[in-house]
Amino acid sequence: MKVIDDLRAVPPELVFDAVKAALVAHAEGNTVVPPPMALDFAGGDCHVKAGHVVGQPHFVVKTASSFGGRNNGSMLLLSATTGEPTAFIADNGLLTAWRTAAAGALVTDALTPQDVDEVAVMGTGEQARLQMTWLAKLRKIRLVHVWGRRPEAEVLLCQQLRAEGLDARPGYQTGAACVVTTTASPDPLPLNAFRDAVHVTGIGTDMPGKGELPPELFAGRIVVTDDHDQCLDHGDFGHAVRAGVVAPQADRPIGAVLRGQHRDQRSVADLTGIGATDASVAGAVWSLLG
Amino acid sequence: MKVIDDLRAVPPELVFDAVKAALVAHAEGNTVVPPPMALDFAGGDCHVKAGHVVGQPHFVVKTASSFGGRNNGSMLLLSATTGEPTAFIADNGLLTAWRTAAAGALVTDALTPQDVDEVAVMGTGEQARLQMTWLAKLRKIRLVHVWGRRPEAEVLLCQQLRAEGLDARPGYQTGAACVVTTTASPDPLPLNAFRDAVHVTGIGTDMPGKGELPPELFAGRIVVTDDHDQCLDHGDFGHAVRAGVVAPQADRPIGAVLRGQHRDQRSVADLTGIGATDASVAGAVWSLLG
Repeated sequence: MKVIDDLRAVPPELVFDAVKAALVAHAEGNTVVPPPMALDFAGGDCHVKAGHVVGQPHFVVKTASSFGGRNNGSMLLLSATTGEPTAFIADNGLLTAWRTAAAGALVTDALTPQDVDEVAVMGTGEQARLQMTWLAKLRKIRLVHVWGRRPEAEVLLCQQLRAEGLDARPGYQTGAACVVTTTASPDPLPLNAFRDAVHVTGIGTDMPGKGELPPELFAGRIVVTDDHDQCLDHGDFGHAVRAGVVAPQADRPIGAVLRGQHRDQRSVADLTGIGATDASVAGAVWSLLG
Repeated sequence: MKVIDDLRAVPPELVFDAVKAALVAHAEGNTVVPPPMALDFAGGDCHVKAGHVVGQPHFVVKTASSFGGRNNGSMLLLSATTGEPTAFIADNGLLTAWRTAAAGALVTDALTPQDVDEVAVMGTGEQARLQMTWLAKLRKIRLVHVWGRRPEAEVLLCQQLRAEGLDARPGYQTGAACVVTTTASPDPLPLNAFRDAVHVTGIGTDMPGKGELPPELFAGRIVVTDDHDQCLDHGDFGHAVRAGVVAPQADRPIGAVLRGQHRDQRSVADLTGIGATDASVAGAVWSLLG
């Protein structure tokens, strides 16, 4: 069993390819993804996810914890033919951040009209930055509009994005044709922010108790989910279904829309995070560094 | 993060103490034990369990896999105050075998009359051997009666037990005052084997699809479970409840009967295995070897 704790040599292309393979496999039913486990402690929590892409040599068991606002995480890679532990990836949650960024960027790129080069991001945390920088690896982004609850956080994110070569402007309110939401909000964001959006990607509802996209947003749009059951259970899709805006079978899987054939239609994507992408990325990292 | 792969220095007393502490804490509601995860593959399966004893510094995420009859397993110990991985215990399932042996021996000893020194064990695998040798660490065992489907397996287990200093006799059919069942049977064992049993411990129903104790056995006995929900779901207790022999609230937790106050009454214990014992044992191993 090898311990891997340095991921600096991992190129984004490897992550994109691994995530795409997992999303397509998941859409085709070729993954093994049990419901996650959650442990609650006095001062924090830990979520355990597991996943496997049928045909790949490994599966993964992942921990993701949060204590006092500090996140931690690890991935254990095991052989899917013997059960033996192959590698322990002490990534402190980095691969999860990357696979989330890659999945969001892939679906945002596939469903946003090709001439759109201004994007709004709502939320100012690590995923706000990653969703924009990883999207910029797939298409030209001329300007990022930033929305946050605190103006100083908007300014800081704009500085970070400029440092990575992306023009960025704080104070977003309305008007963007493409909006990506990355908040931990328990309540819907202002509907006006999505007024002109052809495509919206929401990545904030990774666990129960969150909900950032207004249910009304789902009306009349192509609805895309990374996992039907999870999104119905605790994603914004589920909130919209329970609000009576959309039918519980109205969604289609991300893996089925990645070829960009729906870019001219209004769409919304709800991502909750699936263990199969973890398994695929961890397996690819092992192929590179193991 | 430290990798621990040599457990030879771990004394049985440490395992008994850790398991007892976890069973008592679990009985008092002072544990965190989410439902296990299961992954099924073309050639095998993997179960992931997690657990924590409130007040202990760590929690554990455990994998237990079976491919082509070959078992594997590992435990990841994490800090319950920061979420950081503390140790990876590459035990190949050994700690699970020990904590199962300890839990079974503790309840068998606590509920079997003190003058009983002949015990019957049904099943001839690793747990049959361990249940007897660990019980012998808690009380004098003059003779072990062995029951198996294959006579040659009975003889082999008797040889193994004698090599560990326990007199053992193959060909058990009926008459023992204490019976421990350790089979992977999907169907109930012969009722006659339990005819004279004051106490019966069943440890074979660790996952759905198994069932070794005849439902009739539960009638009129003190019923003890290691976890009410798990035993109701897939333990022999649940089979007996669904057969109408016993009420769904008739059981009491192991942790509440370990003081030996029920030794004169007829009893049956159903063990399905709980993650809190894994956490407690792994934490104790870390205290010793970390």
